[in-house]
Amino acid sequence: MHITFIGAGNLAWHLAPAFENAGHQINEVYSRRTEQARRLISILYDAGVRTDLNFADSSSQLFVLAVADDAMEEVCQQLVLPENAIVVHVSGAKPLAQLRRWMAIYSDVPVRTGVFYPLQTFSRDQPPLSFEQIPLCLEADDKETEDILVGLGQELSDIVYLITSDERRLLHMAAVFACNFTNHLLAIAKDLTETNEVPFKLLKPLIRETIRKGLSAGHPADVQTGPARRGDQQTMQAHLTLLSDQPQLAEMYELMSDSIARMYH
Amino acid sequence: MHITFIGAGNLAWHLAPAFENAGHQINEVYSRRTEQARRLISILYDAGVRTDLNFADSSSQLFVLAVADDAMEEVCQQLVLPENAIVVHVSGAKPLAQLRRWMAIYSDVPVRTGVFYPLQTFSRDQPPLSFEQIPLCLEADDKETEDILVGLGQELSDIVYLITSDERRLLHMAAVFACNFTNHLLAIAKDLTETNEVPFKLLKPLIRETIRKGLSAGHPADVQTGPARRGDQQTMQAHLTLLSDQPQLAEMYELMSDSIARMYH
Repeated sequence: MHITFIGAGNLAWHLAPAFENAGHQINEVYSRRTEQARRLISILYDAGVRTDLNFADSSSQLFVLAVADDAMEEVCQQLVLPENAIVVHVSGAKPLAQLRRWMAIYSDVPVRTGVFYPLQTFSRDQPPLSFEQIPLCLEADDKETEDILVGLGQELSDIVYLITSDERRLLHMAAVFACNFTNHLLAIAKDLTETNEVPFKLLKPLIRETIRKGLSAGHPADVQTGPARRGDQQTMQAHLTLLSDQPQLAEMYELMSDSIARMYH
Repeated sequence: MHITFIGAGNLAWHLAPAFENAGHQINEVYSRRTEQARRLISILYDAGVRTDLNFADSSSQLFVLAVADDAMEEVCQQLVLPENAIVVHVSGAKPLAQLRRWMAIYSDVPVRTGVFYPLQTFSRDQPPLSFEQIPLCLEADDKETEDILVGLGQELSDIVYLITSDERRLLHMAAVFACNFTNHLLAIAKDLTETNEVPFKLLKPLIRETIRKGLSAGHPADVQTGPARRGDQQTMQAHLTLLSDQPQLAEMYELMSDSIARMYH
């Protein structure tokens, strides 16, 4: 399959090579910031940089909209597609119906739409991720498009799910809690230790074991530990005293501790 | 070395067998709840249950106070120790000076005190953890006791640190952020997905990769992703709408997102 990437950010950086490894051809990469597109094609076999969104003469059948959610409508307005194109977005939050509506309004030719959402966190400049164990959440307008996306998905990953827009949005929000906020807590712990000249690395075995245990338990709540779980007011007070010059962290500490306490007491 | 455990909770459940595996003898286990002591000795070689805190005739040299922080003073009041005993607590939050003061007040014989704090999360009923990669944070009144604790620690773990009470409290607080709160976020994600009939297991590869990436990056903040990192207001609003009937989660969402935004914007 010939594929065009619109957007050259964190996700495109990992997904485009994965398509190539499955035997597909990335024709073109467009990015609002041309240097990003140039960087991405430098790790691809034979892709070119596009500086505008007129793909009327493209030989691609699949157009991957790998742009930020709030840039998507503007891209759809400018996008000129060849006949029989399939346009997919890769967003956790955006309903398929929204993309379908935009293409119906803005495209001169009929276009099939779908969603190709890999449930993973991607950072550019990290080594390419293997997609085999990355869940792909797919959705399409019609059965034929669905079959094409499922076939494509199964070439990349062992975990392919058909997921509705509502389910996908819910999954994405759960991922924000379990992953984005979790990573932020690690960043906070790193800052707390290092500003006090205690090595952050001492925490790493504990963090790894927390996740191992939380994911292998029947429910992560079954293996919750710590002062809020025990109702240990003395320790929580001591921690809040330590945080007295960082009111936002103190507020977070209280809110998380209350939320833990509410789950158990 | 002959060792007595006072307390038979999550930590004792893992630490007592680890001492045995290093060739030491657990003589006695006391717990306010006798059935807990009985459960613990059932996995030990030759330990007996004690139902009171009079150890005047004990052959133990080391007494491990593995009780909740707010139970510690009461235990110290009742504790009767033999000559030359070393008493250590295993708490992240409690200063050594506090234990030293209590023993000075309540013990009829002179007692050496110390801290033997394994920086790990322990749950009873989980398979015994190997201590080799668990950082042990040690502290003692005097050089001789310190040497004894360091020797003992090095038999269990490759990662033995001398840490002051202030450093230990800070590490413990950072661990509450990086581990207790993190586990709670996993519990929230589990509840969010399963009450909406989406399989939680879809999130597992993402969670594992988040931690792998966060711990291998120079700083977890370098690999932060998600709507708050991107400043994606649309998605954050959509998530808050989804959470409109769960005000505490909505508050947590806003606070964490603000805190992420503040780190970057």
